[in-house]
Amino acid sequence: MMNKTAEDIKALGKLSRQASRKLARLSTDDKNHVLINLSGFLRTEQEAVLLANQEDYQEAKAEGLDESLLDRLLLTSDRLEGMADEIQRVSELPDPIGEVIETSSLPNGLVTSRRRVPLGVVGSIYEARPNVTVDIFGLCLKAGNACILRGGKETIRSNTALVALIRKALIDAGVTEDAVQFVDNPDRSLVDAMLKMDEYIDLLVPRGGASLVRFVAENANMPAVTGGIGVCHTYVDKAADLDMAVEIVHNAKVRRPSICNALDTVLVHADIAAAGLPLMAKELTGSGVELHCDNRALSILRLEALGSALPATEDDWGREFLSLIAAVKVVDSLEEALGHIDTYGSGHSEAIITEDDAAATRFLDEVDAAAVYVNASTQFTDGGQFGLGAEVGISTQKFHARGPMGLKELTSYKWVIVGKGQTRP
Amino acid sequence: MMNKTAEDIKALGKLSRQASRKLARLSTDDKNHVLINLSGFLRTEQEAVLLANQEDYQEAKAEGLDESLLDRLLLTSDRLEGMADEIQRVSELPDPIGEVIETSSLPNGLVTSRRRVPLGVVGSIYEARPNVTVDIFGLCLKAGNACILRGGKETIRSNTALVALIRKALIDAGVTEDAVQFVDNPDRSLVDAMLKMDEYIDLLVPRGGASLVRFVAENANMPAVTGGIGVCHTYVDKAADLDMAVEIVHNAKVRRPSICNALDTVLVHADIAAAGLPLMAKELTGSGVELHCDNRALSILRLEALGSALPATEDDWGREFLSLIAAVKVVDSLEEALGHIDTYGSGHSEAIITEDDAAATRFLDEVDAAAVYVNASTQFTDGGQFGLGAEVGISTQKFHARGPMGLKELTSYKWVIVGKGQTRP
Repeated sequence: MMNKTAEDIKALGKLSRQASRKLARLSTDDKNHVLINLSGFLRTEQEAVLLANQEDYQEAKAEGLDESLLDRLLLTSDRLEGMADEIQRVSELPDPIGEVIETSSLPNGLVTSRRRVPLGVVGSIYEARPNVTVDIFGLCLKAGNACILRGGKETIRSNTALVALIRKALIDAGVTEDAVQFVDNPDRSLVDAMLKMDEYIDLLVPRGGASLVRFVAENANMPAVTGGIGVCHTYVDKAADLDMAVEIVHNAKVRRPSICNALDTVLVHADIAAAGLPLMAKELTGSGVELHCDNRALSILRLEALGSALPATEDDWGREFLSLIAAVKVVDSLEEALGHIDTYGSGHSEAIITEDDAAATRFLDEVDAAAVYVNASTQFTDGGQFGLGAEVGISTQKFHARGPMGLKELTSYKWVIVGKGQTRP
Repeated sequence: MMNKTAEDIKALGKLSRQASRKLARLSTDDKNHVLINLSGFLRTEQEAVLLANQEDYQEAKAEGLDESLLDRLLLTSDRLEGMADEIQRVSELPDPIGEVIETSSLPNGLVTSRRRVPLGVVGSIYEARPNVTVDIFGLCLKAGNACILRGGKETIRSNTALVALIRKALIDAGVTEDAVQFVDNPDRSLVDAMLKMDEYIDLLVPRGGASLVRFVAENANMPAVTGGIGVCHTYVDKAADLDMAVEIVHNAKVRRPSICNALDTVLVHADIAAAGLPLMAKELTGSGVELHCDNRALSILRLEALGSALPATEDDWGREFLSLIAAVKVVDSLEEALGHIDTYGSGHSEAIITEDDAAATRFLDEVDAAAVYVNASTQFTDGGQFGLGAEVGISTQKFHARGPMGLKELTSYKWVIVGKGQTRP
C-alpha cells in the first residue's frame, strides 16, 4: 500500500480535497467526538505505537543519529499521555468555523456578512518528532480541514501507527477516514510532487529546521507558512531595571535554548554596561551559557575575570544558536539597537528592557517583528501563552498570519450576501 | 534616468523598503495631506498628463490596438476628475494603521495585543489602464505601504506623467517621494527581476487578464494576489420567483459584461425551465446576448423560436466570456447545480435565485467561493459595494484575503506584549 509515485500522491490529494468538503460541514460535536476518541486511544492503545517507535528508535540508533534527535523521536507512555492531553485541550477549544466575522446591512437592503470557513486541505512536511502527526491532525480537523502528513523517514513506523489510531478515531465517530492522508514513503521526490499540488493543497506547513522551511518556501507553488526561525534580541536600555534585566535575559536564553523564541543576542546600552553586563554574564555563564562578545563587552567582562566569554565574529550577529550560546554587544543608543535588530533580526520576537516609556513606545513602534516585548521574556511567543489555545507554528511572514498560528489562522472566510431581488444600478 | 537592468529594479526595491519604514509611522494627517494634494493636482494640472496620454494614444492607434484597449488607455479631463474623486474618497476613509485588533490581559499580568501595521512594500504589475497607477498608490499610501508600479508599455508616458503628479503631491506634504517607485522601462526582463525580489516586495498585486495573473502567481517568489478571474454562475432554482430571476440574470450579465463578477453561466432547474427559460432568454437576447445552450435548453428555446441561441460546446462551461455571451444549462436538481459550480466555477461569485430557505442555506453553505449570493446580482462583488470604501482587487484565493481587498487587506499585524519583568516558567 506504500505510495510510490507522484501519481499516488496526487491520488491522496484528490481524496483530501473530497474529504475537505465533508469536513467543512461537520458539526462541532462530530469533530470533538473524533478528538475525544483519539485522546482516549492515545491512552488506552499505546502498545502498537510504542512497539513501532522502538523499531524506529533502534534503527536510528544503529545508524548513529545523535542524542538530541534520538530524544526527539522517542515516544514513551508519558509522552503519549501528553499528546492525549493536548488533543483533549483542542477538543475543548471553541470551534472557529461558522463564526460570522462581521455583518452589515447596505442601504439597498442587501445583507452582507463574512463567515469563517476552513482553508480546505493543509499539507505538513516535518521532521523527527512524531507528536507533530497528532498535533497537526487535531488542529486541522477542529478547523474543518483535511490534512496530508509527510513526516521524517526516521519516524515512519511511529507515524504509521499514530495515523492508524487517528483513522480509527475518525471511523469510530462516523467521519471519513480520508480526513487524514499519510505519505508513507520517505522518497524525497514525493515531497517535490506535494509541493506542486496547488490544485489539492491550500496551505503547506513545514515544521523543522531553517533549511526545510526555506526549501518549502522556494519550491511550493501554494502558500506556505514561513517561520519557526527566530534570531531574537533583547535590548537592555540605559533606563533598565538591572535586576529585571538579569532575570529576563537569563530566562529568555536558558529556559529552553533550543526553541525559536530563545534569546540569541543581548544588546546592552553603554551607560549601564559596566554595571549590568557582569551581572547578566554571571547568571548566564553560571547556567553554562557561552558568550560571544563584541570588543567593548569583552573588555568589561575580562576586567571582571569571568570565563566563557569569547570574542564574537561577524557570523555571530544574526545567528540562531538554538543552544547555550549568546552573542553580546554594547550599543551607544536605542537607535543603534534598532538598527542592529533591523539588520540582523529575523522578524520573530524582540524585546526591550526599560523603565522609560518613551523608549518602550519607540521600540514597539519601530521594530518590525511578529512579537515585540517590553520587560518580558521572548520565550512567551507561543500560541498557548498568547491565549490561542494551541498552535500549528509561528509565522514570521506578514501575509495571512503573523506570530503564533492557532485554529483561526487555519481558516479563511467567504462573503455571504442575502438579497430580495437586488440588481446593481 | 530609465531603469535598464535588474540591478536598477533592485535599487528601486531598496528605496521602497527604506521609504516603507517611514510610511509605517506617518500620521493619518500626513497621509491625507498627500492624497488631498494629489486629488487637487489631478483637477488643476491635467495638461501634461493629457498631452502624454495623447502621445500614448496616437502611438497605440497607429500600431493598430483594438477599440476596447484604446478606450481603456484613453484619459480625458472627466476621467481625471473621476480619479481625483476616488483619491479624495480614499483620504476620507478611516486609517487602518495602529488599530488594536484585540487585546487581553493574561493571568501572569502580561498584556498582549495585536496591532495593525502595514505590509511594507506592495508591487503592482498591470496593463493598459492608467487610472490603476493612481488607485494603487492611493490605497497603498493610506495603508502605510510603499509601492512599486509597473504599468503597461502602451501607457508609459501617461503613467510617467501621473507619477510626476504623485511625487509632487508627496514632496509638497513633506513625505518621502520614494513612497512611489515607477518602472519606466517596458522590458519584460525587468518584470522577471521584480518577481524575484522577495527581499524588497511583500506583496504583488497583478491587475489584468488571466494570463498575467497566472504568470505572476507561478513566477513570483513573494505572496501574490490571485484573483480577478470570475467564472460566475447564477442558479435559478425550481422555487425561484421567475420575474426576479429574469431581472437578476439580466443585470448580472448585461450591466457590465466585461468585468470579473459578470454572469457567465445560467443554470436552470428543469421544473421551471419551460416556463422560465424563454422569459430570461428574451430579456438577454433583447440586450444582444448570445446564448450557448445545452441540448435541453436549446430544445426549449427552439420551440420558442428565439434567435441567438446556439448549441454549447464543452469549452463553454467554465469559460469567462467578458462579453455579451452566456452559457445556459438545464439541471435536474440543486445537487447537480452545486456539482456543476464545483467543477467549473473559479471561486469568485456564485448566486442562487430561490424562495426556498433550505435551498438557499444549502447553496450558501456548500458553494466554495469568495462571494455567495441569494436573490441578488453577482455584479455586487466589489469593494465599494461591500462597504470597504475602495478596492485594490478581488482575491479568489483563501489565504490572507478573499473577495474584494480594501485598505485592511493591505495590512498585517504585530503582537505587542507589555510586561513588568515576567519570565516564562
